[in-house]
Amino acid sequence: MTWRNSMTWQQTGSRIQCGALNGKTKNNLGFLKGNMFQLDDVIEAQQFDREILSAIFEVAREMETIEKASRGNQLLKGYLMATLFYEPSSRTRLSFESAMKRLGGEVLTTENAREFSSAAKGETLEDTIRTVEGYSDIIVMRHFESGAARRAAMTANIPVINAGDGPGEHPTQALLDVYTIEREVGKLDGIKVGLVGDLANGRTVRSLAYLLAKFKDVKIYFVSPEVVKMKDDIKEYLTSKGIKWEESVDLMEVASKCDVVYQTRIQKERFGERIDLYDEARGRYIVDRDVLSVMQKHAVVMHPLPRLDEITVEVDEDPRAAYFRQAKNGLYIRMALLKLLLVGW
Amino acid sequence: MTWRNSMTWQQTGSRIQCGALNGKTKNNLGFLKGNMFQLDDVIEAQQFDREILSAIFEVAREMETIEKASRGNQLLKGYLMATLFYEPSSRTRLSFESAMKRLGGEVLTTENAREFSSAAKGETLEDTIRTVEGYSDIIVMRHFESGAARRAAMTANIPVINAGDGPGEHPTQALLDVYTIEREVGKLDGIKVGLVGDLANGRTVRSLAYLLAKFKDVKIYFVSPEVVKMKDDIKEYLTSKGIKWEESVDLMEVASKCDVVYQTRIQKERFGERIDLYDEARGRYIVDRDVLSVMQKHAVVMHPLPRLDEITVEVDEDPRAAYFRQAKNGLYIRMALLKLLLVGW
Amino acid sequence: MTWRNSMTWQQTGSRIQCGALNGKTKNNLGFLKGNMFQLDDVIEAQQFDREILSAIFEVAREMETIEKASRGNQLLKGYLMATLFYEPSSRTRLSFESAMKRLGGEVLTTENAREFSSAAKGETLEDTIRTVEGYSDIIVMRHFESGAARRAAMTANIPVINAGDGPGEHPTQALLDVYTIEREVGKLDGIKVGLVGDLANGRTVRSLAYLLAKFKDVKIYFVSPEVVKMKDDIKEYLTSKGIKWEESVDLMEVASKCDVVYQTRIQKERFGERIDLYDEARGRYIVDRDVLSVMQKHAVVMHPLPRLDEITVEVDEDPRAAYFRQAKNGLYIRMALLKLLLVGW
Repeated sequence: MTWRNSMTWQQTGSRIQCGALNGKTKNNLGFLKGNMFQLDDVIEAQQFDREILSAIFEVAREMETIEKASRGNQLLKGYLMATLFYEPSSRTRLSFESAMKRLGGEVLTTENAREFSSAAKGETLEDTIRTVEGYSDIIVMRHFESGAARRAAMTANIPVINAGDGPGEHPTQALLDVYTIEREVGKLDGIKVGLVGDLANGRTVRSLAYLLAKFKDVKIYFVSPEVVKMKDDIKEYLTSKGIKWEESVDLMEVASKCDVVYQTRIQKERFGERIDLYDEARGRYIVDRDVLSVMQKHAVVMHPLPRLDEITVEVDEDPRAAYFRQAKNGLYIRMALLKLLLVGW
Repeated sequence: MTWRNSMTWQQTGSRIQCGALNGKTKNNLGFLKGNMFQLDDVIEAQQFDREILSAIFEVAREMETIEKASRGNQLLKGYLMATLFYEPSSRTRLSFESAMKRLGGEVLTTENAREFSSAAKGETLEDTIRTVEGYSDIIVMRHFESGAARRAAMTANIPVINAGDGPGEHPTQALLDVYTIEREVGKLDGIKVGLVGDLANGRTVRSLAYLLAKFKDVKIYFVSPEVVKMKDDIKEYLTSKGIKWEESVDLMEVASKCDVVYQTRIQKERFGERIDLYDEARGRYIVDRDVLSVMQKHAVVMHPLPRLDEITVEVDEDPRAAYFRQAKNGLYIRMALLKLLLVGW
Repeated sequence: MTWRNSMTWQQTGSRIQCGALNGKTKNNLGFLKGNMFQLDDVIEAQQFDREILSAIFEVAREMETIEKASRGNQLLKGYLMATLFYEPSSRTRLSFESAMKRLGGEVLTTENAREFSSAAKGETLEDTIRTVEGYSDIIVMRHFESGAARRAAMTANIPVINAGDGPGEHPTQALLDVYTIEREVGKLDGIKVGLVGDLANGRTVRSLAYLLAKFKDVKIYFVSPEVVKMKDDIKEYLTSKGIKWEESVDLMEVASKCDVVYQTRIQKERFGERIDLYDEARGRYIVDRDVLSVMQKHAVVMHPLPRLDEITVEVDEDPRAAYFRQAKNGLYIRMALLKLLLVGW
């Protein structure tokens, strides 16, 4: 959304921002009810601070109630969301569209946006956005290029939500991850999280690391095959924020210490022709019954899905398997964001 | 839908089942109003017995009234149907989506489900179902593998409707066929049906044969080119149920005797490189004005569509051409099933 | 829509027609309120005369008010539109779907209609239409063959809107173009329009020329590279209607005289292997700041979009750049047509 003459909007270097009007608020209730925030776009995980996260989570919990309690909620009745997907991602798209419809809103869907714009006939993303904003009230965009969401938000006069832009950001995934941790473990300060699997290419774990850095006394363990180790930029960022982190090759030991074991898929498509490296990496760290057996009672296993065999099916039955609840939380977070962007707090 | 602790649900070997609570009911009204049935999933034609068919047909007739009488029926307001199509079938999909929307419900559409799950990244169907059930209230699934619908229903905690799973089943097509016969001919007991065309590969005629076997004094004629004859399993099934059947090479003679001439398309894709066999089979039995001329006045021509030239266009004008009414009946049957699965009788 | 026994419908050679019952009406209000018109299908730009255009534009202005004023208008509640697209055109599709949803209607979407009908299995367009009309209240069709929309309208018992049929017609684009001219310039009689770019292949400019011919004292300038000059049929048509036209190679001179500079994209796909001709044509006439500098204050730049570099980005900031407002007007025109076809004036 381009700049609005809003008392509640703060520009801090980047134009995409949301924050408290006058510093930190006193209590959570006032924070939510006092109209002191304005969320304009959702572009990157880093745009959210602790207070806003906490407020969003409170709305997400209301959304759970709405989804469960009633048929035909009409909070967003008459609002139209355009899902502009330049690459297919049915999972994310269905989650957003369900969120919109659960609140009584309507949806315009484009799954192959590539065919009608930039890529096909040479139209710029900006021109496409200017057209689509004429047909809708909010745009949810998935793009194959890093930075595309920010460009869209700069152009649009309506809110834009980034549903993933290439290797860049996927902020609603990061939000639902943090929301899930809080729901499952009961806290965010002081938690120990093991990030497992493909840490080099996984957009998810990178964004999650950024968000976890906003909390206190967090400890992060990186457990990954050598070829897909967490990159230095994240490590340096964590260090600069005072977050403790550690690399480990011992999943069992990490699992026994953590509140959250966050497993990820080794992405075959990142290995090109080096199938040998892929195969080696893939079998390296599996969450199975053995891993469960050393985990604490209150700890949980998370995964952004889809999973292949990096979590064995036998784990599904364990109450600590939180990944399907995590997927469901994506619905509540997206309901919350749609509500906040369209009708405010 | 996974097992529910329901007084009205009977497990008889397979978990997918629906039936009368205490044997056969006295009258049709009580049957419908007494809440004695519960339909959990729609997976295969064989799951329906006469009484349930009769009850579903009564609801389908109500649906006709609803579709014709009013704008904006709200029976399923607030319900969300996910159409999860692993292969495209716009005809079937539009029919289901129209049914849902005619009743005030909402739809999440995935036409290329293959891209986001099993086939693409290796996710299992079960994992996909666990995610999608978090976003919707009922799943309508089309799949390329026989048995996929049953697997989905075993996993899901919400109802699943099979919209065709490979060479397996397509139960709503079978239901609409039987519904059409009853609407057009006025009865099901005692009818004579000629099944014509590709009887070896046609999922439709196989399911229809199963359903017809539930009625009394039915006589079935198989009229097909040698290469696509009805397979023995169906013949044996019919014999075991006491249904009379006969193979014939004379379409004119069969047409003169039948209440229903059910024509089907010879499916080119089943012949591989043997185009010669396809061409030979294709021209063998055509329903045209000559066939109409020997048919009885009350008899009808049916076809699951799409048709090529196996029914000539001149037949369309004849009131006995029932195939477009048959397609429309698909809407009513699907409205009925959605109502029954989501809000009950 | 097939023939209806309607007092208000006039057949004049072609069956697709709409017109005043008894000649011209006295005043615009009576025209609109007196139920003297009936719009059955929208197939080609030529079907509209001045009076009907004027009436449609009045409804389109009402639609602007509806879109801006209220959330959740319910004018078309309970109506179902099927978008049957045999080739992708997300822009046009989203515009129609937005129009339907802004009025409270519902949509069934098929973006790859080719896969389920004629092209794929050999079903005729007529059979597809007969099926789809059973599921919906109005069909919006995009097709790759000229004349397809007319065939669909001949078959269907519900209204059909042509959303572009191959090199044939795209009447709603022509309507929104004329609507935009009237909105931007304030009149249609007496205007001067420069048509620039690919005039040989541009369906848009051809339809626009037909519509402009219905107004008085219009002057049209054709400015195009030699290889994509306006064809003789249009020139002869304009002459026969008493419309003055002129060919020019001097964009600056034309721009200085015109009320509207209507720029179009040179369509690469029309040049086949002659990339050299494409490149030559493409750079020939660009609307940039220099062109703006000679244009009159009240004049506007229009473009059907998408644009490449035939209008430079610097032009966007100028208030005379009307092309994004033009795209938005497409929404209002489509809302108006949907209203007129479904619930009347």
